[in-house]
Parts: sequence; structure tokens; C-alpha cells
Amino acid sequence: MAGRNRDTAPGGWLGVCALLACNVASLAYFIRSFLDHRRRRRTATRPVANADVAIRPHSWEHYFTLAPGAVLNLELGDPTMYEPFWRAVGPRATTVIPGSDTMSYFSDAGAGELCWFLEPEFERAVRRLHRVVGNAAVDDQDGGGYHFVVGNGATQLFQAAMYALSCDADDDAKPVPVVSAAPYYSTNLQLSGHFRWAGDANAFTGENYIELVCSPNNPDGAVREAALSSSGTAKLIHDLVYYWPQYTAITVRAAHDIMLFTLSKITGHAGTRIGWALVRDRDVARKMVYFVDRSTIGVSKDSQLRATKILGVVSDAYELPHAAGAPPRLFGFARRRLAERWRALRAAVAASSGAFSLQEETSGYCNFAKQTVAACPAFAWLRCDKDGVEDCAAFLAGLKIVARGGEQFGGDARCVRINMMDRDQVFDLLVRRIASLKIEQPDYLDAF
Amino acid sequence: MAGRNRDTAPGGWLGVCALLACNVASLAYFIRSFLDHRRRRRTATRPVANADVAIRPHSWEHYFTLAPGAVLNLELGDPTMYEPFWRAVGPRATTVIPGSDTMSYFSDAGAGELCWFLEPEFERAVRRLHRVVGNAAVDDQDGGGYHFVVGNGATQLFQAAMYALSCDADDDAKPVPVVSAAPYYSTNLQLSGHFRWAGDANAFTGENYIELVCSPNNPDGAVREAALSSSGTAKLIHDLVYYWPQYTAITVRAAHDIMLFTLSKITGHAGTRIGWALVRDRDVARKMVYFVDRSTIGVSKDSQLRATKILGVVSDAYELPHAAGAPPRLFGFARRRLAERWRALRAAVAASSGAFSLQEETSGYCNFAKQTVAACPAFAWLRCDKDGVEDCAAFLAGLKIVARGGEQFGGDARCVRINMMDRDQVFDLLVRRIASLKIEQPDYLDAF
Repeated sequence: MAGRNRDTAPGGWLGVCALLACNVASLAYFIRSFLDHRRRRRTATRPVANADVAIRPHSWEHYFTLAPGAVLNLELGDPTMYEPFWRAVGPRATTVIPGSDTMSYFSDAGAGELCWFLEPEFERAVRRLHRVVGNAAVDDQDGGGYHFVVGNGATQLFQAAMYALSCDADDDAKPVPVVSAAPYYSTNLQLSGHFRWAGDANAFTGENYIELVCSPNNPDGAVREAALSSSGTAKLIHDLVYYWPQYTAITVRAAHDIMLFTLSKITGHAGTRIGWALVRDRDVARKMVYFVDRSTIGVSKDSQLRATKILGVVSDAYELPHAAGAPPRLFGFARRRLAERWRALRAAVAASSGAFSLQEETSGYCNFAKQTVAACPAFAWLRCDKDGVEDCAAFLAGLKIVARGGEQFGGDARCVRINMMDRDQVFDLLVRRIASLKIEQPDYLDAF
Repeated sequence: MAGRNRDTAPGGWLGVCALLACNVASLAYFIRSFLDHRRRRRTATRPVANADVAIRPHSWEHYFTLAPGAVLNLELGDPTMYEPFWRAVGPRATTVIPGSDTMSYFSDAGAGELCWFLEPEFERAVRRLHRVVGNAAVDDQDGGGYHFVVGNGATQLFQAAMYALSCDADDDAKPVPVVSAAPYYSTNLQLSGHFRWAGDANAFTGENYIELVCSPNNPDGAVREAALSSSGTAKLIHDLVYYWPQYTAITVRAAHDIMLFTLSKITGHAGTRIGWALVRDRDVARKMVYFVDRSTIGVSKDSQLRATKILGVVSDAYELPHAAGAPPRLFGFARRRLAERWRALRAAVAASSGAFSLQEETSGYCNFAKQTVAACPAFAWLRCDKDGVEDCAAFLAGLKIVARGGEQFGGDARCVRINMMDRDQVFDLLVRRIASLKIEQPDYLDAF
């Protein structure tokens, strides 16, 4: 029949050819761009793209080359655990930016807006996700009505907030002390003359201070409130970058004066460098905008567009009916992955027969998950209990595990912070090395 | 014949349908994303996209709504003049970023590189363009061999460079004075305790200083060298963001210790917030990387990918044969547009019969254009010569023209800096308002 048609229906094949020509031309750019982009990324230590990969542990590990004796760098909080999720989501998470878009310094909202470099659609996507999760008051009826400031990651917004809360202090009060309860996330403050690091909040007795409250806390995952009594002179910055349902129970819509969030710890897009602040006071928000303006003249529009797309996919998964083709659900994926890792790490620590210990497991009722859930912190706060080991980071370095030492968090050098969000193969090697150590085994280094 | 084929060739039409089904599915995402993206941007003050627009002045003005009495904000250097060029380039300048790409803090080059957040393909695209234009020594045989640091715009790299050149100074030498010959681009230095602004280089007599050399100069377009004699203690930062062939003659491959460039002033992509530094000394480069790390933990990978795409299109236009479908040429477009604007502005100033004057026109032989070309600065440095006008910015504000006053550049308040890179309609209104003023016409405000 095919042969007959070839002979008797030239018009039909002409149609095929015409369609082919039209469509091939249209498709060529997209496919070539996509493939070129993927080809570039085939390095020895990065996985090859596979949009059809299933969301299950280890499904992409065959792409990732890591020697058994490799150095495991778990010092930073690189969230590469999320890569297979986004590969599974596929093209609907792809960002497309035409060459003539977002060229101005100003956003679509224009120069008259308080945060004049903020893309309005990005703000909408963020407020939508906060409503979906219920972790921050973004609507007026919830005590919201916050001003929105975008930054180059939460890191820049930290500095912007400290600047905003200190720049108008009297000269004799400068630099304004900044404190946080130990163990705290170490913030480098040497770049400003307006504020200074004053260490552990619990050891601080002065006035006119700024307190950083990180909850769940980096490095140990503890749920926290301000350590110092909230007097008239207290100025608080709440770092809520881990207050998402994969890490902790969502117990309340947070409604603090300054709340910081970042894309990195929600979706894993650390390379996009996008954070945001919800700020109660307009004047504080204005000063934060000024800081971001002076530091970097705003924030990449391309990153804001990509974050808009990514956050939209996350919200769609919970708001669209499954039958309507909703994408996979991020928080479920991340919680399962983290819970599995915490089980494996706790088992390895138990197998080490007292060489190590971990922060205690906590749990709470999560308004988002509608059930009681265990906390799955983004970092393990690992303590070396082995006799004679005073510096846990140095001890682990001997096992080719790079972790950040506890003293960098104002804590005990017998503790280290370990990233729980790295790639599967890295985490698996970590667990095996931890488990292989026993307190009565002095020749532990022979194993490596 | 079509009727006959419909009847006799079902296999042919089956083929058509099958192809349609396959291709429609593949195309759907791309087209929808593109259209969605465009739809979002249809605001009152932004043009609707039109990839088929011809590259000619005013070709897109019917999309842009600006009332005859509108305020003209020409205070910043927003380079929206370049938008119609990139619309004409069309889809080949489109950036496509799959959801799972560039998620890590680290770039493909990995943690071992000096600038660990730099995408290697971005560096390659930049070095290629410098070779095409011949404006900076990037190859060893040209005295190059520079280290490459990417930043969130040149603004961040300025601060990074000043930090790198001052952070290790003796305590009694801090804050290190930073100078530049007036009129200079005003840099806000209040955010650091390591360096301080010390004003006009020509009025400075101390030692252990940092000199900023901006050439062509912002605000007046002058070609410059260091104002202070280069002694052993001189530390120079060269701001070469306008050293591109649309603005000035390319006379030499620049080879200074620290050279700063930015995407904004080359291609008009200010919203992408990408700059780079070519740095001779490895230790200085390392300190600049540290500054960018501490400030923003690197630079958006999405912006680096987009800049790679955009710069690749610019280089392709000069390196690919025209017959091979090379894209339009950026520098020719921008030079023609700026030259036309300068002619119009000079004519308007002449028509004002002495109310205004401009910087003198200069010219030089351009190695890139292979001919003598007139300078077409990115800013007009306009002086009000009208009797009784001491503050030109205030005078122009009465005409609803917002310009940055000369005293902000360490210069004369009778001067203002005016952006020459805004959209056509804005520029046309500026010219009409300037031309309507005559020195003997005291009731100039009646015109508005």
C-alpha cells in the first residue's frame, strides 16, 4: 500500500515534504540550542541530561563519576540533591529569554516602585508559593502587607538588612553590634563600617544591637526564637531560608519584621543567586533597596525570570489537579530523599559505636503536610566523641571528608557541619566512611 | 488534484497527520513559552515584541507610548537604544535554560579554579569578542595573560578592585584614598572601611592612593590616561566600559593592571547585570573573587549563560561570512544610531542660540573600523550658558528633563550628564525641547 501511494499520490507526499520543511525550520533552533547546551555540560563530574529519568534515588548515578577514595567536599551547602527532580520535571521548567527582553536596569514595574529592579511576576510567584505552603504571612488578613525586596541571594540581603538597621545609628553607637545565638551561621562583616560582629547572643549584654535569628538554624537545624528579650531597642533579622516543609514542620505563618528567603534552599537553584526579603517597615525596605542598588545596581532580570518559572512549577504541582498534568511535587521529593538520608546517616553513626553523635531528632505537626513529621535538617551537626579528637574537621579531613568546623559557628571544634543536600553518590560514600569507623578501631585510616 | 489525492492517497494524509502530531507536540512548549513571555511584557510603557522589525530609527516607536509633555528621565545610563537591534536579530539571540542546569554554586570549571563561579564558556565568549574588536590584550603575545573575574556588573567589580587594592594596607594607611580626575563618575564608597573617596586626582597630593581611570570618561567621553604620575605606590583601576567602537576609536589593545568591562554598555543588556575584570596579578584577582564571594556568593549562572549567547551573536556577525547567514552587526548599528543622535543634539544646541553648549567633537583612527571616526560618547555633557542659571539640572527639571548635575561628578553645576542611549522617542523629545530654547527667550516654560 505504501508503494501504491508513492506512485499515485504525489500531492500527499508534497504535503508531507512541505510540512517537514516548515516544521524542521521551526524546530531546528530549539533542538540545536537544547542539545548544544546539554553537550557543553558533559564533564567528568556532571551527569548527562535525561529528561525522562525517574525520580528515585540513584537513578542518575551511572552518569556521575566519583572514585571510591575521592575527597568529599561537604563544607558548603551546595543543593545538588535537587538536580534529578528538575530533570524529571523536564521542559516545563525550561526558561526561554528572547534576546531583546529585560534589557533595562528597570523592571516592568518602572522607576516609581520602591524596589525598582524587581520583576513584578517574580514577586507574584513568590507570594503565591508562600500562600501554597503557608510559611509566611504575605496577605494583609494574615498580618502581612510586607514590602518585597529582591537580592543576589540571601547573602546580599543579610548585608542589606544589617546596613538598613545600622546606617542611621548615632556615630557613637557605630559600628552597631550584631549577635546570634551559638552555634550560628558565620557571616563575614568586615566589609562595612556600620555594623560589627559581636558573637553569641547569649553572651551579649549591651543595647542597640541587631540579632540574627535563623530558624531552622544553620548549622544544627534547631527551631529558634530570638535569644534576647525583645525590648524597644531590639532589631531582629529572621533568616527563614530553611523554613520549608522538606526540612521542618510548618507550624505557623511567620510574620516577623524582616524575613529572608532564598531560591537555593527551596528548589536547589543556588547558581541562580536569587533571594528575597519580606520587610514590614517601608523605610527599612527602602534602605535595603539602596544597599542592593549601590552594591550591584539591582538583581539579574534573567535570574528573576528563571526563578519565576521554577517557583511557578512548584506551586502548579500543588494547585493544579493531577489529571490536568500537574508536575511532580518538589516538597514530597525532597522530604523523602532527606528522610532516607537521615535514616542512613543515623544508622551509620550508630554503627560507629560511639565514635560520633548527631543532633537529636525532633518532630512536629506540619500544617502543610497535615501530619506530624520529623525534622530533616539541611545540615548534619556531627560531633566526634572519639577520645583524643579535639578537632573534628581535621579528623574528618583524614578521611577525605571536608566539613566546616564547629568553631566557625561559635561552637565546639569537636562538631562539624556536613551538607546533607549533595549528590547521592557523594552522600553514599560519606555514610560508608562514617559507618566504617568504630570507637575501638584505632587503625581507621587503613580503610582509605 | 487535491480532491483526487484526498480520495486516493490515505497513506499520504496519514503521513501528514502523523508529522503534524509529532511536530505540534514538540513545538507547543516553545511557542507557548515565547508567547506567554511576550504577553507579560505588554505594558503601557514598553513596546510589544516584533522579531521582524527592521533596524531603522523609529521603526518600533508606534509601540511606545510617551505623552508630549512627559518627564524625560535621562539621569541613568539606561541603554534601551539597543532594544530594536536585538529584536531584529531574532531567535538566534534567545537563551534557553533547562530547569536542571547550573544549579550548583560552582561553575563547570569546578572548585579548583581561581574564579570558581565563572562559567568557562562565558570567559571564552568574552575573550573572543576582545580579539574581534582588538580593544584589550587577552592573548599572551599581546602582553595579555590576564586572570578573569566575573561580577554582578562593573559596579561590584569596582568595589572588589578597591577592596583588593586596599585590604592589606597597614592600619594607619586605612582607609586608602581613592581619586579620579574631575569630572569623574561618582562612586559611593560608604560601604567599606578599607578605602575612602578622596575626590579629584588633580587636587590630590598624598601617597598610597588608588586612582580610577575611566576612558572614554564618564561623564564627558574624554580619552584619558592616569592623572597622577605612576610611581611605585600608584595603584590604578581602568574603567574601560565605554572602550568599544560605537563610542570611540579603538586605537590600541589596552593592557593595564586591572581593566573593567560590562555587558550593559556593549550590547545594552543592563538588566543582565554582568561585568568582568581582566586582572594582571593573581593575588589581586584572588582578593576580588573573595569580595564577590562574600558579597553575593558569586554571579548568576543564568546571566552568564545569557551573556555568552549574546556576545556569541556579536562576534559571529564579524567572523561568519555574510553568505553563511551572519547576524546583523552590533557596532555598526550602534554607531549609526549614536552618530545620528549626536548630529541632532548638536543641531538643537546650535538652534538654542547660546543657551547651551556641548563637549567638543573629537575623532581618531579606529583600528577596528579601519577609518577615522568621530567619538560618539554614551553621555552628553551639556552646559547651560544662559545668564542667571547656576544649576543646570534644576533648570532642565523645569523642562521635565531629569539629568544628573555636574557637581555629582566633581564638576560644575552648570553642567549636566544626559544619557544618549535611551529610546528614540525619549531622545527625540529631548532634542525638541533643547532646540525650542533660545537665550533671548525668557518665557521658555510656556512651551510645556
